[in-house]
Amino acid sequence: MTLTQERTALRQRILSANDEVAARLRRRLDRERTLAIDLVSSPGAGKTTLLEATAHRLGASHRLGALVGDVATELDADRLRAAGLPSHQIVTGGACHLDARLVEKGLDVGGLGEVELLFIENVGNLVCPASYDLGEDFKVALLSVAEGSDKPFKYPAIFARASVVLITKADLKPHTPFDLESAERGIRSLNPGARLLEVSARTGLGMDAWCDLLEEALVHKAAAWSL
Amino acid sequence: MTLTQERTALRQRILSANDEVAARLRRRLDRERTLAIDLVSSPGAGKTTLLEATAHRLGASHRLGALVGDVATELDADRLRAAGLPSHQIVTGGACHLDARLVEKGLDVGGLGEVELLFIENVGNLVCPASYDLGEDFKVALLSVAEGSDKPFKYPAIFARASVVLITKADLKPHTPFDLESAERGIRSLNPGARLLEVSARTGLGMDAWCDLLEEALVHKAAAWSL
Repeated sequence: MTLTQERTALRQRILSANDEVAARLRRRLDRERTLAIDLVSSPGAGKTTLLEATAHRLGASHRLGALVGDVATELDADRLRAAGLPSHQIVTGGACHLDARLVEKGLDVGGLGEVELLFIENVGNLVCPASYDLGEDFKVALLSVAEGSDKPFKYPAIFARASVVLITKADLKPHTPFDLESAERGIRSLNPGARLLEVSARTGLGMDAWCDLLEEALVHKAAAWSL
Repeated sequence: MTLTQERTALRQRILSANDEVAARLRRRLDRERTLAIDLVSSPGAGKTTLLEATAHRLGASHRLGALVGDVATELDADRLRAAGLPSHQIVTGGACHLDARLVEKGLDVGGLGEVELLFIENVGNLVCPASYDLGEDFKVALLSVAEGSDKPFKYPAIFARASVVLITKADLKPHTPFDLESAERGIRSLNPGARLLEVSARTGLGMDAWCDLLEEALVHKAAAWSL
């Protein structure tokens, strides 16, 4: 067996094992009445800033929590806690994505208490996190206008899998060559059912629509629980 | 052995095998009098736009070439060819980084001819490419001002290993909270010897300094060859 074949075989075993843990985690989150969202993007697309702004809007009316994955540092969990969002940092120590076991352990030791809406902020990486089920209800992909409208075509896996795509840093759009129609076409061609929102956490643009979407998801989930 | 231990062991074997191919590739590039640069960044930090602008400045006086890694699509090689830069696309089909074997194969089949200055545009990813030697003379890390000044702390491996760090999209700086001093501090703490340049391929800011750096590297390399 070549090293590439060994890697492919091992990767399949790792993904199968991850799927098992994710299924167990999903049952646990359901039991605990927690809606979980996996946020995936390039580094610097604005995941943490989005969560800060979301906490300011929803923190008073909902019990929020965050698990924050990074290769190194506690910077992001510190920022979120300062914004009033109970957060636990998962430092991957080099790994390029979160997996279900890291999330499970984060929930065990993170001290988040009862959480109605759990944000899982993945490591900044558009490639590797796409393959990992974290037991979430759905994935949200963020694409900053500064990154360019061709990214859905170039990193198709995550845009095909995300239920929601947020076009972030929309306040920068006038200063960049970002072409919203082209980005939308790319996303729609991969994922016709994705919800698409343009947001700017800095100016507030689109934040009401994003928070409405979250509240709507909470209502749907609560309805499913009461069945 | 747990799956994590298996993964760690296999990763070490893969990296050792890569180092062997990279050493062979480095000898070949030396023989062929080619200076090779590995460009690493997040998706959308501006690698392709930088190379387009570089080709406009150096294309007439130097034989340039590019190998362009992407998970999917030929978009970037198409753009570079349109800018007069002979380019070959390496589609990784899901893989999150280039390795030395892919670069070697790209040189074999890419039809780039004699190349004096070879740009290897890695897959957009700040994590995984950092560990892979591609036989290059040096790595260049790009950090767009839109990504934020905390990225060196959060993705230390590539900033510790790059000989040159380009702060890109500097034209956007007035519209973002990017703090150049803090980013510089982060980079310097990981890598005191790194050359740091602020550039904007769109406005031309810093492009003379970047092209001077490339010409200087070519002169150094030529001097080493003539010894």
